[in-house]
Amino acid sequence: MARRKLTILGSTGSIGRSALDVIGRFPDRFEVVALAAGRQAALLAEQVRAFRPKLVAVADEAAARELAGRLGAEAPEILVGEAGSCAVASLPEVEYVLAAISGSAGMRPTAAAVDAGKTVGLANKESMVLAGEYLMGKARQTGAPILPVDSEHSAIFQCLLGHHRDDVRRLVLTASGGPFRTWSEEAIAASTPAQALKHPNWSMGAKITVDSATLMNKGLEVIEARWLFDLPPERIGIVVHPESVVHSMVEYVDGSVVAQLGTPDMRGPIAFALSWPGARLPLDLPRLDLPRLGELRFEEPDGVRFPAFRLCYDALRAGGTAPAVASGADEAAVEAFLAGRCSFPQIAGAIEEALSRHQVRRIGSVEEAVAASDEGRRLAEAWLAGKGNRR
Amino acid sequence: MARRKLTILGSTGSIGRSALDVIGRFPDRFEVVALAAGRQAALLAEQVRAFRPKLVAVADEAAARELAGRLGAEAPEILVGEAGSCAVASLPEVEYVLAAISGSAGMRPTAAAVDAGKTVGLANKESMVLAGEYLMGKARQTGAPILPVDSEHSAIFQCLLGHHRDDVRRLVLTASGGPFRTWSEEAIAASTPAQALKHPNWSMGAKITVDSATLMNKGLEVIEARWLFDLPPERIGIVVHPESVVHSMVEYVDGSVVAQLGTPDMRGPIAFALSWPGARLPLDLPRLDLPRLGELRFEEPDGVRFPAFRLCYDALRAGGTAPAVASGADEAAVEAFLAGRCSFPQIAGAIEEALSRHQVRRIGSVEEAVAASDEGRRLAEAWLAGKGNRR
Repeated sequence: MARRKLTILGSTGSIGRSALDVIGRFPDRFEVVALAAGRQAALLAEQVRAFRPKLVAVADEAAARELAGRLGAEAPEILVGEAGSCAVASLPEVEYVLAAISGSAGMRPTAAAVDAGKTVGLANKESMVLAGEYLMGKARQTGAPILPVDSEHSAIFQCLLGHHRDDVRRLVLTASGGPFRTWSEEAIAASTPAQALKHPNWSMGAKITVDSATLMNKGLEVIEARWLFDLPPERIGIVVHPESVVHSMVEYVDGSVVAQLGTPDMRGPIAFALSWPGARLPLDLPRLDLPRLGELRFEEPDGVRFPAFRLCYDALRAGGTAPAVASGADEAAVEAFLAGRCSFPQIAGAIEEALSRHQVRRIGSVEEAVAASDEGRRLAEAWLAGKGNRR
Repeated sequence: MARRKLTILGSTGSIGRSALDVIGRFPDRFEVVALAAGRQAALLAEQVRAFRPKLVAVADEAAARELAGRLGAEAPEILVGEAGSCAVASLPEVEYVLAAISGSAGMRPTAAAVDAGKTVGLANKESMVLAGEYLMGKARQTGAPILPVDSEHSAIFQCLLGHHRDDVRRLVLTASGGPFRTWSEEAIAASTPAQALKHPNWSMGAKITVDSATLMNKGLEVIEARWLFDLPPERIGIVVHPESVVHSMVEYVDGSVVAQLGTPDMRGPIAFALSWPGARLPLDLPRLDLPRLGELRFEEPDGVRFPAFRLCYDALRAGGTAPAVASGADEAAVEAFLAGRCSFPQIAGAIEEALSRHQVRRIGSVEEAVAASDEGRRLAEAWLAGKGNRR
């Protein structure tokens, strides 16, 4: 079997590092052709030494100089900026692009991979949130298969395999409920960034961990699922499941529910997305031991204490630019929360405000999607600035 | 789409009645060509009036006369005895045979359907327990697809669809644990048939309900799974799951576990087996509501209080006629228990005794499999008769 030739976008991030951990165990299955990262030159230099890509893209000239200095004669060709990331995402010799740059910054390189018809392992959920309809249309044109990396969407992908698409009644995304699942509305209102960053099950970046605390992350995943699996929002549900063992489910028209389970370790869904449609990678992750866990719990999500996920359904129903605005507003609000510039409930408040002030437009390009997200940022920032003296 | 032309073997039993309930809701999908039943002429007459089969098979001349008398001019052609059941199982115009005669009596008609290359919906687990290796070999020769109807095996079938067979690490069958799951060894020893017949979740026949109480049923299902899915016993596990909502699971080599869930209603797996590979049947069964259930529990099975399932693993390892002997011994012992002729622990005792006295032989025909089951019966009965004065 030929090795899969890969580009990893976002190689120094949480998903990128886990992906290289998986890839490093199966040198006969994968060849890393290119890496794209931001400014973590020291870690990127290590990755270059370990995986020997021919090409690397970094955020700017300063990062490029530092990387070149660290690697000396071992340095591969180094590209710079978004143009560099887009270039490594569309290299002719690359078959597979793992799109793991986080946030809206990942939008354009991911789109470049789709435009080039690559098989895309999609860990950048913002691409789907900002421009899901547009990108899925592009993917149909270029023939780019999109394999989800989010554990929930990977679960749904696995639960749909081999079944008739017309038999699907609905998708059910599971949510851990985050660190504030059992907290009162008052306690949540007074919560600090340090408290929001304590995710009960998953080890992830700061933005997504706060999004898990607000349940905004689940709302963004509903948007992502809406486009990845082409189902309307009313056929995508959310169930809170504190153990994060059932990663998501598909309910079929005969009442049969197919679920995918596993220990909460991102290497599982990453490995699946890297290997599919080939054989699965025999990982030595801790095995799921249900008797040892004893019980799995399930609850309805609470839209009163956690309004953010409801706003994502609203945004989907509004259509067009609304989800991008919600996503941009959330990015700005989470930054403000982490910097101590707003309270936890003001994250959802800023999203709601941005959505209410935005005039929905159609999205006809990546640029329009990014512009809508930027508008969401500005609307949220303006509202939060006005709130500043009332905290 | 052409209607699926069906024979139902065992139409007046629990599975047969549920199957006709499903079939009756989808007259555009199914045509009942023939029914086979035992001696319940009144119920069979109702079924004949509702489904208008061309041919019916009953246990004996008395049942045939009663049926003919009840139906008068409406009576279809009536066949008699095992030869009759085998004939309706192999009718040329029939495409699909639902093999739902319970116990070892279902063996020969099921084998007749396999020999005739019919698609077989397999609810008669004894066929696989007595002669699984032989029957699966026959099915490969005749091209007969075998679709499991047991909820556990239907779950595994659904969890394997679309995945690579070589990626399977193991199967995990779930067991309710039965009515004595939380009982002490002493309390179990003193239990009565009425207590054993109170299954917590499933409504089934008496034999299988007692088998659920001993966990023998799960052992028999391990044997069935061993042949249906061609995996050795050490790659088939059992987990006790009191809610009976997770119907079974498949663990893959990357640690991913795919599970099938649903409310405990046999119409679900029956409908799946009847419809596959066509579209699923949109049943209006109560939908699985995990938040309402709240929690799903899992435990290791206890081989001390419930030794019967361990004996099935022993029988599989011994090979050949051993599983048939265990099954026959269990049939005799459950009959004795229900008739008040032995204690609950003596069911497993009789199976163990029969296995220890039996000389394992290869199975080369259905007749040899049935003979081994009969030998198991005799060995169990002899042992239980000897025990009689020591209860």
